[in-house]
Amino acid sequence: MKPIDYRLYLVLDPNLCGGPQGMVRTAVAAARAGAGIIQLRAPDWKKRAIADCGRELLSALAPFGIPLVIDDHVDVAMAIGAQGVHVGQKDLSARDARRLMGPGALVGLSVSNAPELEASRQLVAEGAVDYLGIGPVAATRTKPDAASPLGIEGFAKLAAAKPCPVVAIGSVKAGNAPALARAGADGVAVVSAICGQKDPEASAASLLAAYLSGIAS
Amino acid sequence: MKPIDYRLYLVLDPNLCGGPQGMVRTAVAAARAGAGIIQLRAPDWKKRAIADCGRELLSALAPFGIPLVIDDHVDVAMAIGAQGVHVGQKDLSARDARRLMGPGALVGLSVSNAPELEASRQLVAEGAVDYLGIGPVAATRTKPDAASPLGIEGFAKLAAAKPCPVVAIGSVKAGNAPALARAGADGVAVVSAICGQKDPEASAASLLAAYLSGIAS
Repeated sequence: MKPIDYRLYLVLDPNLCGGPQGMVRTAVAAARAGAGIIQLRAPDWKKRAIADCGRELLSALAPFGIPLVIDDHVDVAMAIGAQGVHVGQKDLSARDARRLMGPGALVGLSVSNAPELEASRQLVAEGAVDYLGIGPVAATRTKPDAASPLGIEGFAKLAAAKPCPVVAIGSVKAGNAPALARAGADGVAVVSAICGQKDPEASAASLLAAYLSGIAS
Repeated sequence: MKPIDYRLYLVLDPNLCGGPQGMVRTAVAAARAGAGIIQLRAPDWKKRAIADCGRELLSALAPFGIPLVIDDHVDVAMAIGAQGVHVGQKDLSARDARRLMGPGALVGLSVSNAPELEASRQLVAEGAVDYLGIGPVAATRTKPDAASPLGIEGFAKLAAAKPCPVVAIGSVKAGNAPALARAGADGVAVVSAICGQKDPEASAASLLAAYLSGIAS
């Protein structure tokens, strides 16, 4: 696998995309616009459905050479041969995920506060975790059980201490992407800023441009 | 692992048992009374909680030498070293489960009708599936999304064509256990007939005795 490009990270939402076919279409549109990593997150789906959709995504994304990361379900990722998994603080531990997925896989971890970021340092040092998702930046409807919003400033504080690449997540839009880039984000992770948009490819391109404008400034 | 004793199969319910400690107590009580296999089923829990509880169950059950089976979550089973998994028709496929768990693990599959039983024949033949859970015998509150009840007669029809050991599940009680034994069940799987009972060990003993009375008759 080529080095991961975290600059634009798409998290697919089944409802916003209108089901599996919409998810594949949205993923391809985002990949065309330069998304470097795509996550399949379907917390309300049974595993057979996630595996089926994941297999379709893997084949649709193969020409782009970008990784598909499965949220939470390490077993689904292993069964379908996805490149990675993303775990939260209440999912299987990152250590377990790494042990099961092997050294070549991509393992991401969600962190929402300073203690979680500090705890991640050891996990990164021992090779369990490749990147962190830090958020939510602001309150978000696509993850009702998310932690308290950090704001740009809170994100910047955590990102300043990062032990590995970090992506900002949770209410990320073209509007705040430049500020997040300046705040130390190696990328921006979005759900509703791409999923369900009229032209997901154009939305993805705008987001990437917005992020890059912050990096350049 | 010694040969599996399917005669009394306990499925642990977090709510009826009053949480993880109650689940461990209930499992040990049932094991003392002769339960030969125990399943951890917590569809509403995050995986970290299932893994934590599963590890406690494994250590509590080790002296009894009986297998712990994890419902749905192959990754949790692998992470904690559980002896098996149980998958439903919408979970990861039994083939995927077998491939991930390896040849030494126990893999169970839920079937609710004749087409599913017929489809399981090939899975058993190729070594993917070790046993079937056939049900629900009657409507059950502990699994609101269960298929239509089979009745004893419907269970008997499916059991007559069984390609491997089968346990009856779904509203199984001491009252219908003898009839299920006569109908071809290699064991009875219960949730509320043990979990949440005042004396789970006595309840388990009664169930096993009831099942055995059907076998002997």
